[in-house]
Amino acid sequence: MRALTFDGTAARTRDVPKPELAPDSALVRVTLAGVCNTDLELIKGYMGFRGVLGHEFVGVVEEGPEEWRGERVVGEINFACESCPICYEGLQRHCPSRRVMGIIDADGSFAEYVNVPITNLHTVPKAVSDDVAVFAEPLAAAYEVLEQVHVTPNQHCVVLGDGKLGLLVAQVLRQAGAHVLAVGHHRENLEILARRDIEAVEECDWNRSLASLVVDATGSPDGLLNAVSATRPRGTVVLKSTTATKTNVELSRIVVNEIRVVGSRCGPFPPAMRALETGSIDVGSLISHRSSLNDAEDALRRAAEPGQLKVLIETT
Amino acid sequence: MRALTFDGTAARTRDVPKPELAPDSALVRVTLAGVCNTDLELIKGYMGFRGVLGHEFVGVVEEGPEEWRGERVVGEINFACESCPICYEGLQRHCPSRRVMGIIDADGSFAEYVNVPITNLHTVPKAVSDDVAVFAEPLAAAYEVLEQVHVTPNQHCVVLGDGKLGLLVAQVLRQAGAHVLAVGHHRENLEILARRDIEAVEECDWNRSLASLVVDATGSPDGLLNAVSATRPRGTVVLKSTTATKTNVELSRIVVNEIRVVGSRCGPFPPAMRALETGSIDVGSLISHRSSLNDAEDALRRAAEPGQLKVLIETT
Repeated sequence: MRALTFDGTAARTRDVPKPELAPDSALVRVTLAGVCNTDLELIKGYMGFRGVLGHEFVGVVEEGPEEWRGERVVGEINFACESCPICYEGLQRHCPSRRVMGIIDADGSFAEYVNVPITNLHTVPKAVSDDVAVFAEPLAAAYEVLEQVHVTPNQHCVVLGDGKLGLLVAQVLRQAGAHVLAVGHHRENLEILARRDIEAVEECDWNRSLASLVVDATGSPDGLLNAVSATRPRGTVVLKSTTATKTNVELSRIVVNEIRVVGSRCGPFPPAMRALETGSIDVGSLISHRSSLNDAEDALRRAAEPGQLKVLIETT
Repeated sequence: MRALTFDGTAARTRDVPKPELAPDSALVRVTLAGVCNTDLELIKGYMGFRGVLGHEFVGVVEEGPEEWRGERVVGEINFACESCPICYEGLQRHCPSRRVMGIIDADGSFAEYVNVPITNLHTVPKAVSDDVAVFAEPLAAAYEVLEQVHVTPNQHCVVLGDGKLGLLVAQVLRQAGAHVLAVGHHRENLEILARRDIEAVEECDWNRSLASLVVDATGSPDGLLNAVSATRPRGTVVLKSTTATKTNVELSRIVVNEIRVVGSRCGPFPPAMRALETGSIDVGSLISHRSSLNDAEDALRRAAEPGQLKVLIETT
């Protein structure tokens, strides 16, 4: 099959053996995959990953248990052991021996086929198109903010970053009732939020009044510093950016203002699937480019362009 | 009067004018003052402070409202405006226009006299000696951890750092019912905890099993990294160290493990005063040296020695 693989040096679309069905898994024929900022960090060396990239997808089960065959599915990306104390606590996304699709020890979705444990699958409702369903994973990551932080309806929140994750987080916080101000650099991205009555400003126009919750979705190593300086005393910064580089941080500002910095990664699929089914979160406006799997290298290059939103890879 | 002042270059005991009583304040004749790690950072340039150093003290009110004159007192160090939205919320310690004794725009307690706003004073109960009362401020900072984080009686906590603050935090967490493991570098300091049945190990003997709460009281720029690597997924790091230097942090570990990092500074005096009155927290064992105000420069040098605990400055 064709697959976009990273060998530690370059990411290239190659012919690789079609995977065999793994135990307790489904072999999914991928229809559509999405490029995430993490993919771009992986090819800079983050996590030392080698193999097929990609962790956002929608597809159809080709092999596996009979009740799943033919089902249109999306899938959670953390493949947990389901038997350690962390898993028993329900924290499968943090299982210490987990593999992670396209990130840690597991081939990903920029391919014609991908193996996904049955327990990680979610059926896509008929009313949800592939273009919408492919946002399940990043939208779940946006809902993770609500899982970790008690966001109140009267709370002033700032979302830093008008990339794809920032636009999803801003919408999720707004749906939770909060006052949301999105801050970014790309007018056309911010307008997607403005059309949904979410206040959105370019950073140069931002008055920097302090908020009690600031989400760093910049994907930049400088995002934390910027977020901390926009947070009121005893406020919370949610850190969504993962980068391959280290950051020089003036920690005393966090201590003096008693800021709470909460790292945030993958989130719960069920609320994301419900939001996609009702259409309450706009994801269609976030699609900015489509490539074929054979042009996947080009897709990664485009995804790295400033202001670029979701780049989709069509695998069939 | 004599006072230890920092002019941006050197900290020296000098003759300075005795302060006049400030509005809504008491002029306190200082009996005993304590050296804090923050004092050592201030003379490295932290906060750009100039003036009389010191923020831990016990003394007697000499001038001020009649009902306070002659009272033996300790005092909270954040001098708030009491009229801004942050103060109305009860967050006076975070008032944006606050002055802070011996740290921001207010002369400190390494002097014969110090001005303290009346609202910041706490009477020292008769049963509490000066040697004990002088620990009110750092012990309050230790109680701040319980103010910010819900510590449960079955929780496994690690305290990094066997300096004076680490020894106080370990005792406070233990009193809250938690399993506490203190990790340090100085056997004789760790033994103070061991005598109180708190598990305490030298870092070289630490098995590094992950804890759900890790307090960084190392005072070192590397403390955060060490704390994060000792924290289980979704766990909490309380960051107590303030340093003048920046820290190079691999933020992805915080994001991937969804660690919560909570900056922590000054704390509530009432629980500290109650603990000092009942003797439930051992502070006497933490006194490692006494200097006179005229030898205060030497006191700062000693306080910077590895393993040194509380250095007191006798001002009368």
